Amino acid sequence: MRMYDIIQKKREGLELSVDEIKFFVSGYTKGEIPDYQASALCMAICFNGMTDAETAALTEAMMRSGDVIDLSRFGNLSADKHSTGGVGDKTSLIVAPTAAALGVKMAKMSGRGLGHTGGTVDKLESIPGFKTTLSGEEFMDTADKVGICLVGQSAHLAPADKKLYALRDVTATVDSIPLIASSIMSKKLAAGAHSIVLDVKCGSGAFMKTEKDAKKLAETMIAAGKAHGRNVRALITNMDIPLGTAVGNALEVAEAVSVLKGEKRGDIYDICVELASNIVSMVKEITTGEARALVKDCVGSGRAFEKMKEWIGAQGGDVSYIEDTSKLFGRYCKREIKAAQSGYISAMNTEQIGITASLLGAGRIRKEDTIDMSAGLEVFKKTGDRVGAGDVIAVMYSSDASRFDNAEKTYLSALTFSDLPVEKPGLIFGVIS
Amino acid sequence: MRMYDIIQKKREGLELSVDEIKFFVSGYTKGEIPDYQASALCMAICFNGMTDAETAALTEAMMRSGDVIDLSRFGNLSADKHSTGGVGDKTSLIVAPTAAALGVKMAKMSGRGLGHTGGTVDKLESIPGFKTTLSGEEFMDTADKVGICLVGQSAHLAPADKKLYALRDVTATVDSIPLIASSIMSKKLAAGAHSIVLDVKCGSGAFMKTEKDAKKLAETMIAAGKAHGRNVRALITNMDIPLGTAVGNALEVAEAVSVLKGEKRGDIYDICVELASNIVSMVKEITTGEARALVKDCVGSGRAFEKMKEWIGAQGGDVSYIEDTSKLFGRYCKREIKAAQSGYISAMNTEQIGITASLLGAGRIRKEDTIDMSAGLEVFKKTGDRVGAGDVIAVMYSSDASRFDNAEKTYLSALTFSDLPVEKPGLIFGVIS
Repeated sequence: MRMYDIIQKKREGLELSVDEIKFFVSGYTKGEIPDYQASALCMAICFNGMTDAETAALTEAMMRSGDVIDLSRFGNLSADKHSTGGVGDKTSLIVAPTAAALGVKMAKMSGRGLGHTGGTVDKLESIPGFKTTLSGEEFMDTADKVGICLVGQSAHLAPADKKLYALRDVTATVDSIPLIASSIMSKKLAAGAHSIVLDVKCGSGAFMKTEKDAKKLAETMIAAGKAHGRNVRALITNMDIPLGTAVGNALEVAEAVSVLKGEKRGDIYDICVELASNIVSMVKEITTGEARALVKDCVGSGRAFEKMKEWIGAQGGDVSYIEDTSKLFGRYCKREIKAAQSGYISAMNTEQIGITASLLGAGRIRKEDTIDMSAGLEVFKKTGDRVGAGDVIAVMYSSDASRFDNAEKTYLSALTFSDLPVEKPGLIFGVIS
Repeated sequence: MRMYDIIQKKREGLELSVDEIKFFVSGYTKGEIPDYQASALCMAICFNGMTDAETAALTEAMMRSGDVIDLSRFGNLSADKHSTGGVGDKTSLIVAPTAAALGVKMAKMSGRGLGHTGGTVDKLESIPGFKTTLSGEEFMDTADKVGICLVGQSAHLAPADKKLYALRDVTATVDSIPLIASSIMSKKLAAGAHSIVLDVKCGSGAFMKTEKDAKKLAETMIAAGKAHGRNVRALITNMDIPLGTAVGNALEVAEAVSVLKGEKRGDIYDICVELASNIVSMVKEITTGEARALVKDCVGSGRAFEKMKEWIGAQGGDVSYIEDTSKLFGRYCKREIKAAQSGYISAMNTEQIGITASLLGAGRIRKEDTIDMSAGLEVFKKTGDRVGAGDVIAVMYSSDASRFDNAEKTYLSALTFSDLPVEKPGLIFGVIS
């Protein structure tokens, strides 16, 4: 078998065999196939796509390139949740303890933030003492005892994907549905959960800009997961608007706590209920309606919040920071953003809003940047809201006040106003299974 | 400027600017742009093509990556001829002395054979003493005095093309008209001739399998040449059938001599007359009809053959081998191939026939193979000819008789027979300027 022929075959639009895909992934991971052949193949895939069978084979080959975590001790109770990345997306912090409080085993690995999107591991590190690196034994024991354990992604998980993603990132071959789907699913399958709920974002703050592409990505990921015997469902959700009101690390932890305490409702509550209900429905083999009732009761009764505190404590975090989230914030400066005009907000460039938070210090522009845990935004007015000139529409937080001018300009440029009333956008466009 | 953005732009089907193309070629030649980005760009070009302006810019950038030969001392008299490569194609050996005898300055670089096609430099090396490597001064002086000098291609000519071609060769990105056109024309333009005639082969023995692709390639090369102020014409010629009767190095030199001596006519004579007429027509600014009369007289009168001997001698070759071509052959074995059936030859897989000659020792399968100068084939019956069972249709030559069985099998498998008469195929499908 020759890599040349594999590239040529894909260039001609033919379907690669399982053996050809295995040959590529194994040879590339070992360094026997050079980067220049791998990037040519990726570009040909960008143009000619992959069948579901090819995507499943690529997913499996990348999954098997490193550690595969064995969660069989949890039977069919293990579950995972993955978001394709958005702005203000703190759902894992709410969904994981809620599902765990209902008996699901959430033994989960999460990523760090990069570019305009945040990462769950970064957010949790705003809690003093919280450990995002545990030994394999600690990880399993915590998940077993508490029902939830959340750590940073192991370097030994799907190393083929890690290597290939780094190559795609510099060769303009990231943007391909089968390549994105296999990248995500190889890690999710290696992480071992039996049931997986995918939150596929679409809109200006997401990687997938259209609902059509988001659906296609969701279907491709579901097919790859099912090919490996997992339960998979996907929610297609709106990322043309930030989720909730907080964008930033400590700010988002505080918002998650207020949802679990029952103090906060709205889009962030609604989406978490749907994500958790789908997990519980898959794990307990009940209808989503039945699961939704359980989830709402779990949050409403405070059991989900109790589970959150138990979990934070089990991973070494100082629970008093959860009980009083004002403690999460270090010294910071604060500045209001006021509307320059009156009218209805008709659109929010959500990627720009994520970038605003990064400019304030909440995220990384480059991988090596450090994060200002207190920095970020609170967004008071969103698409469909009416504002008067001079109204406070958002508040910026940063330890460095010199960042405010540029951030404010970026934030305001992200907003579009209309004189006529604008309908509030939908939140969940569909559930696919 | 970032290579990433250039790849992305081409991936989106947009036209690259001259500066972007220069940035790529210069960075890639210097090793600042890695192979994996160059191969991704080449694959995107394979899918989205290039405009004539982009191809001209790529040609120019690659041409300027190394030495550019200055033939200005010859004014507008310099000319070059390029064939895209075929089987039995010894036209340079005939066309160059013919044009030189008519006052054209043929200061020319040629390649070596690889795969199923032969190379002019290899053929000339079958003449004892003939030097295919000369100093720059010797090269120019010989061209000036004799009107013709033919050497192997300098390593300093278009090094960007050399590097990029080697990459394309291992990433399945050779087969792209703008990339082929710019590869050929960058070398032709760097070689300095004012007028260029291109012999673009199409058919089973050529790189371009269809007349349509050959025309497109010819038009693209002509546009790239004209963009740099050169006279360029292209003949689209048939490579569904070997050219002439000889395939192999000494065999082809002998056939070229017999054409120049006026002993041989047929397809090889006809195509050389057209190629030489187009060169003479461009250089002397006369019609092709007028040039054709000059060319035929030049060959018929023996002046072209005298020029060939003068040239071979000037480059150190033993002219007695040209006067008596039987001297060109060392010790060899010989075996006839007989038809197993009667009928009309309806098709010849010409690539297979080229491979037969290589199997006999006439060519290189790999770059490092050595050549058996006496080896090859004489082809007596071609497409459209009627043969009886047992008729001798070809003769094989090789210094190693053990090669005959496999070669004969390969040769016979290249032929298709029909019971009904078959029309003789055309030779020249068109002239484009």
